Amino acid sequence: MAGKFITFEGSEGSGKSTQIDLLNQYLTEKQQTVLFVREPGGVSISEDIREILLDVKNKGMCDATETLLYMAARAQLVHEVIAPALKQGKIVLCDRFLDSTVVYQGYGHGVDLDFIRQVGRIVTQNIQPDLTFIFDIDAQEGLDRIKREKDRIEQRDISYHQKVRQGYQDIARQEPDRIKLIEVAGKSKEDIFAVIKESVDRIMDV
Amino acid sequence: MAGKFITFEGSEGSGKSTQIDLLNQYLTEKQQTVLFVREPGGVSISEDIREILLDVKNKGMCDATETLLYMAARAQLVHEVIAPALKQGKIVLCDRFLDSTVVYQGYGHGVDLDFIRQVGRIVTQNIQPDLTFIFDIDAQEGLDRIKREKDRIEQRDISYHQKVRQGYQDIARQEPDRIKLIEVAGKSKEDIFAVIKESVDRIMDV
Repeated sequence: MAGKFITFEGSEGSGKSTQIDLLNQYLTEKQQTVLFVREPGGVSISEDIREILLDVKNKGMCDATETLLYMAARAQLVHEVIAPALKQGKIVLCDRFLDSTVVYQGYGHGVDLDFIRQVGRIVTQNIQPDLTFIFDIDAQEGLDRIKREKDRIEQRDISYHQKVRQGYQDIARQEPDRIKLIEVAGKSKEDIFAVIKESVDRIMDV
Repeated sequence: MAGKFITFEGSEGSGKSTQIDLLNQYLTEKQQTVLFVREPGGVSISEDIREILLDVKNKGMCDATETLLYMAARAQLVHEVIAPALKQGKIVLCDRFLDSTVVYQGYGHGVDLDFIRQVGRIVTQNIQPDLTFIFDIDAQEGLDRIKREKDRIEQRDISYHQKVRQGYQDIARQEPDRIKLIEVAGKSKEDIFAVIKESVDRIMDV
């Protein structure tokens, strides 16, 4: 019995967490075994890596180091949690996955996309999400919605965040079967969840 | 003016540090600008990564994570220190470099050698050592010489350390122009330094 792997992408401030909570609750009520993890992090080693990645003191981090730290954290999370859970037939909800590295380090910083995808295949053990939701929001509006102190990545300038948004829109066009891009602006959380519920119900029936 | 890049490899307990000190002193007396760094580490971000790598609590770290953390630490060290120093014509002495990942994660753990070399090219910015010394010692004898508390890598069993030694011997055969394998057993530190001095003098004259 193979489980289902559903990932959530998009900038902070896009309402991603709220929707993950709603889906978790919905699936649990349907008697599914749901596991929720976030990236970077989710297990002890990866949370240690997360601290290095998000610490604002590490402004001098080069692109290759940043890319490989995200990949290292991902490898451990897949190894310890995601791969075993999917084998046990669980539904795994993951806040960010390989697509984040493609858009934040690839589109955002110009790290070679083939390099990212190749390292990605190794660290994910070739596991791909069955379904990915991207929460699309104007870059400035997303940043404005973050009320806490911004981390090292969030502190980057608006042109960086615009490239990230462009990246998300590109990959959504490239993989329409897997990726659902949801425009957040002007929608209530109920409207957005209706879209998510419909896509999830479809892959659950297969 | 391009500098020179000299790396030192081999298990702990092989007398590597003593020889690096002797060479540093020798080159400084010859009015050379010498920079010494160690891996993993050497700069703040990489030292943070080093802590995760060597912490004995992280026994469950998977091979891909371990490999990519070493690579991430290396990328930052090359970016911040090694590449700029070589461009300024300095002599850089580095305690461990890409060869360590080839033997410890590749030969030792079976991580794909092509994968290691490919990621290696990115993180080193294609910088290769002009000269590499490998300190060759019986695996058990090397471990016995470590008097402090052993780190996560050193705590692995003897068969792992034997594969590492075998790996070092293999790569020395593959690249005889760059790599000098020095058998440590039965040699005084003066004998060993004489070998190092001769090789270093040769690349300095070129």
